[in-house]
Amino acid sequence: MIGGGFGAFIGDAHRRASRISDRFQLIGGVFDKDIEKGKEFGLSQGLAIDRCYASIEDFISGEIALPESERIEAVAVVTPNFLHFPNAKLLLENGFHVMCEKPMTMTVAEAEYLQQQVDDTGLTFSLAHTYTGYPMIREMRELIRQGVLGNIQRFDAQYYQGWINSIIHGRDNKITGVWRLEPEYSGISSCMADIGTHAFNMIEYTTGLKVKSVLADLSNVNESVKMDLDGTVLLRFDDNVKGVIRASQVAAGEENGFKVAVYGSKTSLLWNQENPNELYLLSDTEPARVYKPGNAYNTEFADMSHTMPAGHPEGIYESLANIYNGFAKSIREESYVAGEFPTVQEGVRGMKFVHSVVESNKQNNSWCNIN
Amino acid sequence: MIGGGFGAFIGDAHRRASRISDRFQLIGGVFDKDIEKGKEFGLSQGLAIDRCYASIEDFISGEIALPESERIEAVAVVTPNFLHFPNAKLLLENGFHVMCEKPMTMTVAEAEYLQQQVDDTGLTFSLAHTYTGYPMIREMRELIRQGVLGNIQRFDAQYYQGWINSIIHGRDNKITGVWRLEPEYSGISSCMADIGTHAFNMIEYTTGLKVKSVLADLSNVNESVKMDLDGTVLLRFDDNVKGVIRASQVAAGEENGFKVAVYGSKTSLLWNQENPNELYLLSDTEPARVYKPGNAYNTEFADMSHTMPAGHPEGIYESLANIYNGFAKSIREESYVAGEFPTVQEGVRGMKFVHSVVESNKQNNSWCNIN
Amino acid sequence: MIGGGFGAFIGDAHRRASRISDRFQLIGGVFDKDIEKGKEFGLSQGLAIDRCYASIEDFISGEIALPESERIEAVAVVTPNFLHFPNAKLLLENGFHVMCEKPMTMTVAEAEYLQQQVDDTGLTFSLAHTYTGYPMIREMRELIRQGVLGNIQRFDAQYYQGWINSIIHGRDNKITGVWRLEPEYSGISSCMADIGTHAFNMIEYTTGLKVKSVLADLSNVNESVKMDLDGTVLLRFDDNVKGVIRASQVAAGEENGFKVAVYGSKTSLLWNQENPNELYLLSDTEPARVYKPGNAYNTEFADMSHTMPAGHPEGIYESLANIYNGFAKSIREESYVAGEFPTVQEGVRGMKFVHSVVESNKQNNSWCNIN
Amino acid sequence: MIGGGFGAFIGDAHRRASRISDRFQLIGGVFDKDIEKGKEFGLSQGLAIDRCYASIEDFISGEIALPESERIEAVAVVTPNFLHFPNAKLLLENGFHVMCEKPMTMTVAEAEYLQQQVDDTGLTFSLAHTYTGYPMIREMRELIRQGVLGNIQRFDAQYYQGWINSIIHGRDNKITGVWRLEPEYSGISSCMADIGTHAFNMIEYTTGLKVKSVLADLSNVNESVKMDLDGTVLLRFDDNVKGVIRASQVAAGEENGFKVAVYGSKTSLLWNQENPNELYLLSDTEPARVYKPGNAYNTEFADMSHTMPAGHPEGIYESLANIYNGFAKSIREESYVAGEFPTVQEGVRGMKFVHSVVESNKQNNSWCNIN
Repeated sequence: MIGGGFGAFIGDAHRRASRISDRFQLIGGVFDKDIEKGKEFGLSQGLAIDRCYASIEDFISGEIALPESERIEAVAVVTPNFLHFPNAKLLLENGFHVMCEKPMTMTVAEAEYLQQQVDDTGLTFSLAHTYTGYPMIREMRELIRQGVLGNIQRFDAQYYQGWINSIIHGRDNKITGVWRLEPEYSGISSCMADIGTHAFNMIEYTTGLKVKSVLADLSNVNESVKMDLDGTVLLRFDDNVKGVIRASQVAAGEENGFKVAVYGSKTSLLWNQENPNELYLLSDTEPARVYKPGNAYNTEFADMSHTMPAGHPEGIYESLANIYNGFAKSIREESYVAGEFPTVQEGVRGMKFVHSVVESNKQNNSWCNIN
Repeated sequence: MIGGGFGAFIGDAHRRASRISDRFQLIGGVFDKDIEKGKEFGLSQGLAIDRCYASIEDFISGEIALPESERIEAVAVVTPNFLHFPNAKLLLENGFHVMCEKPMTMTVAEAEYLQQQVDDTGLTFSLAHTYTGYPMIREMRELIRQGVLGNIQRFDAQYYQGWINSIIHGRDNKITGVWRLEPEYSGISSCMADIGTHAFNMIEYTTGLKVKSVLADLSNVNESVKMDLDGTVLLRFDDNVKGVIRASQVAAGEENGFKVAVYGSKTSLLWNQENPNELYLLSDTEPARVYKPGNAYNTEFADMSHTMPAGHPEGIYESLANIYNGFAKSIREESYVAGEFPTVQEGVRGMKFVHSVVESNKQNNSWCNIN
Repeated sequence: MIGGGFGAFIGDAHRRASRISDRFQLIGGVFDKDIEKGKEFGLSQGLAIDRCYASIEDFISGEIALPESERIEAVAVVTPNFLHFPNAKLLLENGFHVMCEKPMTMTVAEAEYLQQQVDDTGLTFSLAHTYTGYPMIREMRELIRQGVLGNIQRFDAQYYQGWINSIIHGRDNKITGVWRLEPEYSGISSCMADIGTHAFNMIEYTTGLKVKSVLADLSNVNESVKMDLDGTVLLRFDDNVKGVIRASQVAAGEENGFKVAVYGSKTSLLWNQENPNELYLLSDTEPARVYKPGNAYNTEFADMSHTMPAGHPEGIYESLANIYNGFAKSIREESYVAGEFPTVQEGVRGMKFVHSVVESNKQNNSWCNIN
Repeated sequence: MIGGGFGAFIGDAHRRASRISDRFQLIGGVFDKDIEKGKEFGLSQGLAIDRCYASIEDFISGEIALPESERIEAVAVVTPNFLHFPNAKLLLENGFHVMCEKPMTMTVAEAEYLQQQVDDTGLTFSLAHTYTGYPMIREMRELIRQGVLGNIQRFDAQYYQGWINSIIHGRDNKITGVWRLEPEYSGISSCMADIGTHAFNMIEYTTGLKVKSVLADLSNVNESVKMDLDGTVLLRFDDNVKGVIRASQVAAGEENGFKVAVYGSKTSLLWNQENPNELYLLSDTEPARVYKPGNAYNTEFADMSHTMPAGHPEGIYESLANIYNGFAKSIREESYVAGEFPTVQEGVRGMKFVHSVVESNKQNNSWCNIN
């Protein structure tokens, strides 16, 4: 693991999820830029102190020096955004499989570089679009593939959070100065890169369609903020299907309000991340249906993504564990379902989305192609 | 009443609502362009046959010939869209108070003409934005006025229906050829004029803010359709607040999915028409609150808009009855609360919205001012 | 109308509901034991002053003196409980159709006396079990009749309110001394007679089954209270099916939480009065279904009980209006569906339920037959 | 681990939960009565083959023979019910800490024997009342301790499942003959012992009150079934507070419908296991509040029981992991909060509940004391 030391919630999430899937063991990593803190953290996790490295370079040289049977095989990159690319690049160049937090890189070119490396090396690269591991998202994907919706006519995704609201209005001084609001650490976008990409990815993941162009209206809310904290993006797909993504980090009181709706010519599907075990199928002609995991009527992909009997709610750790499980299958060259883990291609798409959205906003909200 | 004969659901709704408010009595009208059917309908309602007129002209001459104490005072115009203006115009010119269905007119000029007439005559004119009568919408308006939200940062409204989906995909032949899909009867827009205007009106009604400009992306879905059936509209307000309206008449399985969310710097308010007696207040710092009507904590405006004890759900007829009640108070020159019934000004705003939206869509989705 | 003057919410509800159904006109009544107040109230309703009577005896002699074509045909009895019987008795004896609030009488003998009168006279008698007019309750009844549930195995009803909580804990002095807590005005039971009977009636209404015996555990909560405010009742049906009714008037914060669940061998149906336009069908083998009114898939009985298009919520006034409509059909000897209005038989069953429940509680919570 | 081999869902759940808490490592156990299958299972988990034992006796002798630093410290007993006691007894007698599935034993005497052993040895014993680990249940417990509800007046718990419905009606032959329906393996009760105990435990866990007596009405539904599959239990507490538990394993379509409601003199709290991250606080005087985990307003006990930011749903594995975490703290003699894991005392209470309930049902539904 690179990053994820004391106080890093996303690193902890990766460790828990990988333990649930039970196909990974934490051996070592670079847990902090301060090596002493990094070692202290490693010890707290029961690791050998010589596997707690000071830098990615030390990590690579140290691990490569070990016999292959002892060497770390796969690395989770859970650093701040600007370090995703350099870490992932070095890891791929040196033969490590990579599980990378999103956004994958800072630029499209970097993303394409990683894609090329993955293509060239045959290594497994997974992007942590955590929500694609939920069983009812996988049910949604399968129902759409089966044609249950007819032709898709409209896509509508919402991703509303409120946590930055407290910061910009000065109610929560503890987290001011967080790296997420500094472009040099976080990238050209806050809201769209951090959560808009989840919505974008979910569209393409569930429908199999590709977004062709975007028109974005972003807002920094407060003049002292250097990045978008809120925005709406209009979408067009190849076949003239349209959609919209609404995202905000300043929607007061919203916690993690990620909702996905796909409207077809026959029926529609609606999902809400905060109640992830319900999937609504709306129909013009029949009562709405509520799909839930753990039932005999589930598709195979949903079924393999839920382990408890029906009615026993699994949550976001299990969702990420499902992705780790697919990641492991790929590393071990076992058969897996397309969609069991998000790939480097999805990372490239995500970076193109972010850059197109920012460009559209600059160009007075005109259409920009994603390609 | 003009319009609203056999088979007209909206006319029936107005009659029921006016009976609930108990301040109106149906005396006569023009119920059908076929006078025989109109008379038959009038008889079915227990009316005198000589008050069932063949045309608006006959109605006016007939009623004006009566002594003032017997004369009809107020008229509900519930015809197809293209007849709203000519009927309302003649009624105002001849001294009748008017309750008009929306959209108020076919053009902005017509709307402004009606506004001028209302200003000149001092007659009461109400537009049937039915949803503004719901007690929890009125609670929302009052809470915003009290400053509970802080500064408004974002507005998000959804109005999704699916009923035209069946028509354009040929599953429901009974209602093809409906006047709503013919521009000469319905106007330049279907989705935005019929339901988008409700969302637009609700924004200005609940927040007191004025939308300054719009950017619209509309879709006819099917090439044979002459009007928009689906669309997204970006909004800007004077003080750089932004918003979005999403509306569709082809969202398969959606019934009358009108949702309104206003996000402020301190808290946010969310309301859903299909469950109209719950209003959610979200906060960064406290548990969400669920406001319901009939409670001692309600604002006065909400309280006067609900008659049953808490937990006894009132519905859309009672919402419209509340508007009829305000309309009656104005006619009788009793005191009433601003917002008790939608006025001709709101009708003008609505027509400007529809025309700006259609214009923006034509201009390759560029910003158009509403003024 | 007998009762229902100034400040009486249930009388107002009856007037509104009867206006919605549009088959009744308020002509006169006894609106207050103080004749001056009664006249003042009648005037406020636009009534002729000579139809505002001082007593039930005056009412009857006054109306009978009129020619039949002018005479009031049907009377709503909306007095406090102890006056239901004497008023209904006199009205039936003198040829008036009666709409009676519940509980129908104070004793089983009185209830049976009314039943005999109805049988003998052929007059129409309806009991105001308001909730049986909701379209989704009627859908429930029809789905059960169609055998959708298989064999019924369990019935579970909840009726939780909290309004008396404030009174007994002294937080709401305004409503202390209310007649509902005085046995001589209200009867032998508060909670079970006022709301438990709704639950009991709904069981027999939706399932067509008859409860055979009850075992009740009631609570007065506070020693100064003379009647039950809270209780649980176990139920047995003829064929060994079991059920439970849970009711309370001191469930803090509950508004009108009436929930009905019927569990069958194949599927189950769940309904909640506070969100009355949704009916859930649960199944072991398929996703849950959500039935809503105004849809083509509705049963005919549900369809005729909802007038708006789907997604436009109707509420409790419309539910009571549906019952008034059935009442009118019966009076006019038009055909109507069994179940369109609750009958005197249901009133007898309700009184037997209340008396059996109170008896069971006295007998140390042992089983008591209802027959 | 004793039990929990191939196909055992509850064993898998314990392994996952213990991995999430990251304070346990699976070393060995008795995974199957067939030693070959047990070894095969152990290998699949990456265990040393000599730690996969053939019997509890072999397990104990094998582990005791090891130096203390290598010896297994704590054992999860996840066998069928009738084996809980003999395993737990031997383990405690030989110095192992025990995490035991419920019901703890077959008889009250056995339960009291275990309690005595725990008292005598000072070992840590935890019972897997999984749901007590949910953060919002812990919030509920803390809010009640803080007096937010005032005096408790009523308790209402529902635990409805439908899975046995398919079996007894012959639709699902795969699971007929399951040990849960055989008294010699499962005990004197099915529904009340398997799920009724969860409801009973939750009452005492959240309120701190003790149930004094019960009156039960149970049903086997089908004559060929030897145990209760459905029932209602009336409850009395010391201070005349009353309550009710409704439980069923044949409620068609219900998945794991465990709901808990506590009604106080001031406010009430409601929780639903299938949506475990919401806790409703109802009040007579204020809007209802919705508590969710991960927020600054949470009590400390809820806060330490949720690791993700607000809005990222954790589920049942995390709930059980919280209990494993408390279990580990006790073993390591770290400080922990009372309520972090269910104790042997709670197991004794549960067995008394089951036996009292069965006795009450036999005694024609009369009151039986629990003591």
